[in-house]
Amino acid sequence: MNRKGILFVVSGPSGVGKGTLREKLMETPLDGLIYSISATTRKPRSGEVDGRDYFFSDVKTFESLIAADELLEWALVYNNYYGTPKRFVFNNLEKGIDVLLEIDIQGALKVKSLIPDGVFVFVLPPSLEELGKRLNTRGKDSPTEIERRLACYEDEISYIGNYDYVVVNDNVLEAAEKIRAIIIAERCSAKRL
Amino acid sequence: MNRKGILFVVSGPSGVGKGTLREKLMETPLDGLIYSISATTRKPRSGEVDGRDYFFSDVKTFESLIAADELLEWALVYNNYYGTPKRFVFNNLEKGIDVLLEIDIQGALKVKSLIPDGVFVFVLPPSLEELGKRLNTRGKDSPTEIERRLACYEDEISYIGNYDYVVVNDNVLEAAEKIRAIIIAERCSAKRL
Repeated sequence: MNRKGILFVVSGPSGVGKGTLREKLMETPLDGLIYSISATTRKPRSGEVDGRDYFFSDVKTFESLIAADELLEWALVYNNYYGTPKRFVFNNLEKGIDVLLEIDIQGALKVKSLIPDGVFVFVLPPSLEELGKRLNTRGKDSPTEIERRLACYEDEISYIGNYDYVVVNDNVLEAAEKIRAIIIAERCSAKRL
Repeated sequence: MNRKGILFVVSGPSGVGKGTLREKLMETPLDGLIYSISATTRKPRSGEVDGRDYFFSDVKTFESLIAADELLEWALVYNNYYGTPKRFVFNNLEKGIDVLLEIDIQGALKVKSLIPDGVFVFVLPPSLEELGKRLNTRGKDSPTEIERRLACYEDEISYIGNYDYVVVNDNVLEAAEKIRAIIIAERCSAKRL
């Protein structure tokens, strides 16, 4: 059977914990599922490995990828570029391998316009208060930035109608299990046969 | 949140092992999921308990259930009636409890016409040969009856387009895990929010 791979997109507001969820999910790999590594111009942090955590790139190379339409989606965040290499995703889907993306909401909407038969999972925080707490705890962002992100939240939530599934990230283990269940279930979906 | 329960229907050709699958699934119960017990006029087999395995009933009572439109679906099999009591299903769905049915294909099509937003899972044998082997091994049916069932198979398969999911029952444990994943995933479905 010449099965095409399925694209799974895990997305949600900043601070909701989608990176942790993705890591938890990939700890017990699923047969036939591969994680799509992002390209970035940000410098590697200690312990990060090129080709495992990110494809590290200089600005010139990254901008040539944009110019050549080699990215499924990209964004400039704090003067660093982040993007999803198109070829990696399409090559794997063509080979029948499912691909997992973990990206922000703007990126997910872009990907949906290009790959509408992907499976889009929106990760929700248990509450807005909890999201604020998490953004504070991880200590990545200034109070102003946290304020800005929380202000975006209501706007971001309004895109939920573009998604196929909603997973509340109340408990990382349970939420990761739900994403795993979504992957297994979609593989049994009659409409894909 | 006033969530309505979801109806899950596990169905497939005779001999495909849907009963075993359902038992395997219910061995580790899922929170908020209840199995809908069928009513039957067949005599209890040794070890079977009324209200657990079946609601055992006499013919007169069963026929009065049919007359009063109290059954979601029913069938006469080898001079025994089998059917799904409507009230049990609807009461639980109303209370927000998910309900699992395990029924034949004709019954599933009937239920779909009444509850179109249910989730319908078609259980497939690994192959027609394997189905024949299973029907022979379980020793319930005469060779003529097995012949007849296998002849129906192609016709039954043609209804697969009415179903949401297809699970191949190659390995009982894996197939039961797939049905469990379908239940968990459907609970996260955005269209149900």
